[in-house]
Order: sequence, then C-alpha cells, then structure tokens
Amino acid sequence: MKLLFIGDVVGSMGREMVEEYVPQLKEKYQPDVTIINGENAASGRGITEKIYRQLEAAGANVITMGNHTWDNREIFQFIDQKTNIVRPANYPKGAPGKGIQMIQAGSAEIAVINALGRTFMNPVDDPFPVVKKLVDEAKRHTPFIFVDFHAEATSEKQAMGWFLDGKVSAVVGTHTHVQTADNRILPDGTAYLSDVGMTGPYDAVLGMERDAVLKRFVTSLPVRFEVPKSGRAILSGCFIELDRKTGKATHIERILINEDRPFVSQ
Amino acid sequence: MKLLFIGDVVGSMGREMVEEYVPQLKEKYQPDVTIINGENAASGRGITEKIYRQLEAAGANVITMGNHTWDNREIFQFIDQKTNIVRPANYPKGAPGKGIQMIQAGSAEIAVINALGRTFMNPVDDPFPVVKKLVDEAKRHTPFIFVDFHAEATSEKQAMGWFLDGKVSAVVGTHTHVQTADNRILPDGTAYLSDVGMTGPYDAVLGMERDAVLKRFVTSLPVRFEVPKSGRAILSGCFIELDRKTGKATHIERILINEDRPFVSQ
Amino acid sequence: MKLLFIGDVVGSMGREMVEEYVPQLKEKYQPDVTIINGENAASGRGITEKIYRQLEAAGANVITMGNHTWDNREIFQFIDQKTNIVRPANYPKGAPGKGIQMIQAGSAEIAVINALGRTFMNPVDDPFPVVKKLVDEAKRHTPFIFVDFHAEATSEKQAMGWFLDGKVSAVVGTHTHVQTADNRILPDGTAYLSDVGMTGPYDAVLGMERDAVLKRFVTSLPVRFEVPKSGRAILSGCFIELDRKTGKATHIERILINEDRPFVSQ
Amino acid sequence: MKLLFIGDVVGSMGREMVEEYVPQLKEKYQPDVTIINGENAASGRGITEKIYRQLEAAGANVITMGNHTWDNREIFQFIDQKTNIVRPANYPKGAPGKGIQMIQAGSAEIAVINALGRTFMNPVDDPFPVVKKLVDEAKRHTPFIFVDFHAEATSEKQAMGWFLDGKVSAVVGTHTHVQTADNRILPDGTAYLSDVGMTGPYDAVLGMERDAVLKRFVTSLPVRFEVPKSGRAILSGCFIELDRKTGKATHIERILINEDRPFVSQ
Ligand SMILES: [Fe+2]
Ligand SMILES: [Fe+2]
Ligand SMILES: [Fe+2]
Ligand SMILES: [Fe+2]
Ligand SMILES: [Fe+2]
Ligand SMILES: [Fe+2]
Ligand SMILES: [Fe+2]
Ligand SMILES: [Fe+2]
Repeated sequence: MKLLFIGDVVGSMGREMVEEYVPQLKEKYQPDVTIINGENAASGRGITEKIYRQLEAAGANVITMGNHTWDNREIFQFIDQKTNIVRPANYPKGAPGKGIQMIQAGSAEIAVINALGRTFMNPVDDPFPVVKKLVDEAKRHTPFIFVDFHAEATSEKQAMGWFLDGKVSAVVGTHTHVQTADNRILPDGTAYLSDVGMTGPYDAVLGMERDAVLKRFVTSLPVRFEVPKSGRAILSGCFIELDRKTGKATHIERILINEDRPFVSQ
Repeated sequence: MKLLFIGDVVGSMGREMVEEYVPQLKEKYQPDVTIINGENAASGRGITEKIYRQLEAAGANVITMGNHTWDNREIFQFIDQKTNIVRPANYPKGAPGKGIQMIQAGSAEIAVINALGRTFMNPVDDPFPVVKKLVDEAKRHTPFIFVDFHAEATSEKQAMGWFLDGKVSAVVGTHTHVQTADNRILPDGTAYLSDVGMTGPYDAVLGMERDAVLKRFVTSLPVRFEVPKSGRAILSGCFIELDRKTGKATHIERILINEDRPFVSQ
Repeated sequence: MKLLFIGDVVGSMGREMVEEYVPQLKEKYQPDVTIINGENAASGRGITEKIYRQLEAAGANVITMGNHTWDNREIFQFIDQKTNIVRPANYPKGAPGKGIQMIQAGSAEIAVINALGRTFMNPVDDPFPVVKKLVDEAKRHTPFIFVDFHAEATSEKQAMGWFLDGKVSAVVGTHTHVQTADNRILPDGTAYLSDVGMTGPYDAVLGMERDAVLKRFVTSLPVRFEVPKSGRAILSGCFIELDRKTGKATHIERILINEDRPFVSQ
Repeated sequence: MKLLFIGDVVGSMGREMVEEYVPQLKEKYQPDVTIINGENAASGRGITEKIYRQLEAAGANVITMGNHTWDNREIFQFIDQKTNIVRPANYPKGAPGKGIQMIQAGSAEIAVINALGRTFMNPVDDPFPVVKKLVDEAKRHTPFIFVDFHAEATSEKQAMGWFLDGKVSAVVGTHTHVQTADNRILPDGTAYLSDVGMTGPYDAVLGMERDAVLKRFVTSLPVRFEVPKSGRAILSGCFIELDRKTGKATHIERILINEDRPFVSQ
C-alpha cells in the first residue's frame, strides 16, 4: 500500500501546484491513495465545494482539514454529503462532518483520521482518547490507518507519534506550514513526520503575503493577511509505503518542490 | 567564512554527541566558527560552568541560549565573565550577560546574536527592533552576522527571516527541537532555516523521557520530565558558507546524525 | 438551604483566617453547608491531609479544588478515601478523586461540582458537557446543586453561568484570587458570581510574596514565589440562600474581610 | 481633585447608559475630570469620530482605549488630532496617537496614561518600564496621575498596582468587563481597583450576545459575536478623590448601575 500526502494547500497558487505536480508525483510514486490537506485551499481560509472538486480532479482521493475547517461557511452545505472529507475528529459532538473516513485504495481500504492538537491552539476535545477510539474501531476493518495530526507544538506531535506507534500506519503532522526533516519509522512500525509543510506561495509567511505579516509583527497594527496570487510556489508532501499484510510502514520519504529544489520526474 | 551550528544540546546524551561528532564535523566542514546552542545542556535545564567548558573543549567557539537560559542558577556566577556566551538580547534591560558577542573567526570577526520569539512564549521585549539595533551596530564592524532566533511559531521565525534578509548572514531558528527542512538562501542573501533541531536523546519527546511526557498529555497529572541518560541519540545542526567580502550566504546545508542517518565522514 | 462558600485559601495565613472567621460567619449566616476552595491551602500549592483536616475542623463540610489539585503529591494518598473533596470534573478519565460529591446539609443533600475552564489555561476536557452530564444526574437526587467553576476568563465564566441558568442553584467562580462585584441572580434562578476571591495574604499578588512577583514581571528572571507567613490578611467568600423546594437562588451576598473592611458580627 | 472613571463602553446600549447616567453621576460626585474607556464603543470594536464626540458630549473629558484601539479603522484619521484620546502607551514606536495626555481638570492638570498587559494577551512592549518612564516625566508637571491598565490577568494588574504604589494617584484596570470588588488605597497612597467593569448590555457575555458566545463555547463552530441593541443594561465605574497637594488618593468607591442595583441620585 502506497500513500501520497500533500500538505496544507494555500490559495490559488497552492491549487495550481497541486494541478501541476500531483499528476507527475502519481506517475512517479504510483500511490494507491492520495491525501491532500485542504484547510487553507480557499484563499487561505477553508474550502469551497468547487475547490474540493478541483482537488479531486487533480488527483486527491481524500481531503483532510484542520483548525480552518469552518472558515468558509460553504462547507456546512456539502461536508455531510461527501465520504472523503475528514475534519478534526476531536471537535465537540454534534459537529458536521466526520473525523474518520474509510477510503477504497486499490483492493484494500484505508482509514484516514484527522485530529487537532491543543497546545497553543483553541480548546477542543482531548485528541488522545478520541483518536485512540477511532483507531480501535478502524483496526477491525483494516490494518491501514493514516493520521493527519494538525497541531502546533512539536511536543504534542511527537507525543501522538509515540502514543500511536505500532497502532497505526502513519502519523503525519500538518498546521505549521513548514516541513520538518524528522521523517522516520518509529520502533513499532509507524511512519512519523512532525509536519509535512504547505503547498502555495514560496516567498511568503506560511503562505500569507509577507509584507503584511511583517507589518503586523513590527507595528502591532491591524493588517488583513492576503494570500499572494502570483510569484514563486512550493509543494510539500510525503510518500509512505506500508506492508501489504501488517499495515506497518516500511518507508517514508519527504517531498519538496520549489525553485530551489525543482522536481525532476524520473 | 564557514559556520557550523549545532542545535539545542540536551543533557548528557547531547553532550556526548557533541564530543563524538563535532570534531568529525569540523574535520569535514572546516568551519571558521562553531556555534552551539546550550540552553538545555544541563539535564535539559540551562547550563553550568563545567558544561560550558565541556562544550568549549568539544569545539564550540560560542554558546547561544534561549528561554531556558536561567534555569540553572549557576549561570549568574559566570555569564558576565565570558565573552562567548550569548543569551537572548530581548530580555529586559539589566539582565546579566549579553545578547550579542563579537567572535574571532580566523582573521575575521563574526557577530553572534540570540533572541527570543514571543508568539506562544513568555512576554519579553519586542525582538524585531532589539535585533535590528544590534545588527545596525554590528554592521559597522563586520559583514558576518549570525542570528539564533529562539522561537516557537513558524510565522514569527519566517517573519524574522524576511525582516533580516539582506541585513545579516544567517537567521537560524532553535527551540522546537525538531529540525525543519526549509533551509534556503533568501532573495537578498540571508541563509535561513526555521529550526535546526536538537542534539540528545532520539527516542524521546524533545529530548525528554517519552513515557513521562505521554503520561502528562494523556492524564493531565503532574509528571516530572527527566532527560534520558542512555539510548539512541541524535545530533542536529547546519553548515553555512558566507561570501568572504559581502558576508552574504552562498550555501546552507542541514546536518542530521542518528541511527537512521549515520554520519559518514568523507 | 443556606450556603457559605470561602474562596481559594492560600497558605498558613489563609488557614488562620478560616479558623478565625468561619466560626463567626457560621454564627452570623447559619449556613446548612460550608464549602471551602482548598487548592492553594498548602503553601499555595495543593493540599495535604493534615490541612484538609484543619479546614474541616474550622467548619468546612466540603473542599473544592482547581488547577493546583495535584501540586502536593500527598493528595494521591487520601483523595479517594474522602467523600467531601471535589476535584475538577473535567480531568481526563481515570484521574483519582471525584468531580462531584453529594453532601448531607441538614435534612437535605446538596451536589457540589468543581470544574476547570480552558481559556488561558491548560487543556482539559470540555467543561460544558462534563458539567451538564453531572448536573443531569444530580437533578434526579436533589434540587440543590452548587458549581465551583475554576476558570481564568470572565467570558468563559459568564458563559457557564448562562449555560447553567435555571439548571443549578449557583455558579461561583474561583481561580483569579480577586473577588468580582457581579453577584446576581440570573433570570432563571441561578446565583452567579464570576469570582469569589481568595483567602490569605492581603498585601501580596494573588497571595504570593509581592516583591518576588514584581521582580519576575520586571526582570523576566526566574523567581521562586513564596507565600508570606505574616502580615495583613483577607478572607473572601459569599453567602447564598436557596428556595427549600425548588433549589433556586433567592439571595447572593459577597463577603470580604480585611483591615479595610473589618468583620463586625451582628 | 475628584475623578470619575467609566469602564469599557460597549456599543449603542453602552453609549445610552453613558448619556443617561454620566450627567447624573457628575451631579452627584462633582468630578474635576471624567474619564471613559471607549475601546468597544463602536459595536464592540473600536471607536469612530462620531462616537468620540458623543461620549465627549455626554461628559467625557478623556477617552482611554485598549486592545481594541484599532478595530475600527476610522480612528487612524482622527486620533492624531485629538489631545484627549489615550491609546496604550506600550504599542511599538511609531504607532499613531499617544499613550499619555495632560488634561486640564479645574485649575490643575492630570496626566492620563493607558497601557496594555501582556499575560494572556498579544505581545506588546513591556508595560512596566514604559509606564514608569511616562510617570517620571508626568511627575515633573503634576502630582495627579491616573493609569488605566488594560489587562487580562489579575496577577499582572496587582503587580502594576504595587509597582506604581506611591508613584501615581490611581491604577484602575479595564478589559475583563467584570468589575472587581477589591477597590482599596494601597499603603503608599495609590488608589487601586483590578477592573472597573463594562458599560453596556447586562444579560450578555462581556457585552456580546450571549447565545452566540455560548454556541461558540459549546460547539467550537464559528460564530459572529454581535452586541445586543436592546435589553437591560449596566454601567460600571468608579469615583476617586485625590489629595489636592500630594496627588495621593484618599478615597475610591465603586459604581455599578443596573436593574439589580438601580441608581438613586442623592
Ligand atoms: Fe494550514
Ligand atoms: Fe492549521
Ligand atoms: Fe531548547
Ligand atoms: Fe527553548
Ligand atoms: Fe487558587
Ligand atoms: Fe487556580
Ligand atoms: Fe473592553
Ligand atoms: Fe479589551
């Protein structure tokens, strides 16, 4: 079982990178399932149905979300009709959408879970027992379980990695928009990466227009952050291979495409 | 001008990694100056004079610090006597020690600055004007300026990178203890890396005993975090080359040494 | 049904105020039940069994806690044997102790609940559904329900007040150590006070030695906060009357005793 | 010298309370200067020039602000032309407006200072040295100095009170929107009150529509907070008397007007 995961797609530049490179990455890596984090796909704030379809058309089998899930209110109109959008599982009971989806991937199924961290973030339900419960249920159906842990603090992300080591196929972080270099297979077989990074503007701050963010930091005056619509772009992702029988990870590889590290299909 | 920078050394395992690999790295990279972040060198909490000497003996020319600067109170007895310890420059006026040091590196001098971020951290003085002022002063003496920006949030780190692009030789982040993969030369010639990562226990959470941290996350009960004294270890660092005349960066390379990525001297 | 509630007892000076004034307050108000928040009773950090007994001897029928519940580890040895200590109900499952206790008060029973806020505090389970569930269960046994909501943010406290209005007898806040002046009966009959305030050193910062706290704010240097053992003291509390049949509040009165507002028994 | 201070005016209901009761309060207390915090006067978010004039017409001699200073962008057009608007002094250098204003009050002058806390708030410059410097300068001109310390944490507010005790006439907190009951004269003559409270909707959460805030706390779904335009209202303030020669406080009295505590002019 092979997985391709693309990190937080930010705005139109992010979507263009997906459209340009995901087909090439699929050709190179031949993934059974392609997962894209889309929490910032609509101008940095949530997702619309049109953009959801655009990401699907570009190759996404599943869309995961994060703390920006509800930023674009259009999502309330379509999230419950889709079987391949995964919003954070640890929102309070009664929230629209689902925190886990079972996705057909070739002849097998893979469970895709999304959860929010709490350190330096808004209060939500405790991700540890919530994810644990979903994992226990998913285990009955499939050995392939992928967790997109959307969190700020490296401590909480590493803790989740160790917590799930041997219980899931992979724990990959999102949210900081900067790819970490700590991809590894944990001792009990779980692929781990603290953050996969973002996909969108390259000469920006987390994908937001850098002069505005700088002005905010330097002056404390209110600034509206916009996503640049042109300029250099980056795509961040990872590729993971799982043992066909046990669901344990055998390989995790980081993917970064930008002007400094151009993609060369092989 | 060549720089070697080693990220947050945590406890005795971190010090052992420094002693084992810094000499080998110096042989490989032939740096003019070696900088080590030592804020967690004493059992994860600050630094002692003995450990300061140990890091010097292992090859450090400068020690930078961070939010753990004062954790071990012994530092108050020696920090003002040393000309190569740099504590965060944006502590309130009157704090012991200095936020910038001029270090002899071969025939040239390099200014080494340390500063704290504020997002998700304790309140300190605004790092942007504080660092700006130190940079403007240092510029009169040398084109070589290295900034260790000790911060949590990727947004604040990237903002500092853009803020200083073209004004300093390098902005390298510390504090999250996880190396990021975004090493690059910014358009105006500043080497940038959001976080260089840590040096110490590898099967841990930020260098702290993982079962304790996990227990804390899962139970909310009080747990004393200890630094493991044995087991697998990691060294994280980066190597930077600067133009001899302009001080601008020409190369930045990440260094990671652990069992998954063993060091092979060449 | 009459309730006397005394806010966060801090250290020996707080305990002495309880011993001196609670008997006098009981004589004046003739409460059916006396509740004391004891989370800071042991030198500002948690509670010991000896101090628990001391507060009982001084008149407490129930002890509530807060974010400092586990600060003194001795509590793990006796909390599960006591039927009148209430720790925050929204700690993760498996925590020692209970978040609700049924207390005999004259011929009736009163349910006492303790819960933690999350805004500006460490992550815990969502207090709203946790408290709701306990209230629904308690309702089957008694119309008298008292909630000590230990929280920082006035917004979260007021939200809890409105959330429980008409469902419980009283929602009284603790944790900020400063009494608020907003005692009122909400439209559906719940007595509300954002914070009852603390009991202990008067010329201090939240009960901690003021020079140390000031030094911390002004220098950012590490300072160990101690609780003063002598000097002027304050006692903060409130008195609440409930309708004997409905459990609804008919009266809430603030109590403040210090040198500026001496207690005069009537 | 007599001061009347009215806390955070929220929306149209707050402005109506000011228009109705400030004239009556002025008749009762005969203040030499009336200070109103107007950071939430425009629908809860900042202030407009029209509203500024409305508050002046209702009796305000000075308007203080807070973390919502820039919420309504109209302020950038008039703040620099007014000599009686005080925005937080510890915004970064270069911010529009002033953090201190000298106000004619009868035959004397009073310095009015506004500053932001940092605990649980966005990063700004350290309020302690910033306020200290302004106080030292003001002292040369007048013994009457009033500080509106706009902060969240009771610890930081009390620390500021002790820090300025004997150096200013009064330190009164704003921002939590809940009046505290700890009005006192500190040992060296400074009047102190942790928070004066708000002026506006009474059956709300900090002045915001309560169902919306509750929905946010309970569901974590996005909710736009609006200020109610009708219903019961509250006015919160305090009255302070200063010694004519020394500027030291001789009296501080809390003012609360709402349906539960109707105002009775005497
Ligand atoms: Fe994102
Ligand atoms: Fe996010
Ligand atoms: Fe560190
Ligand atoms: Fe650190
Ligand atoms: Fe307390
Ligand atoms: Fe507390
Ligand atoms: Fe306000
Ligand atoms: Fe405010």
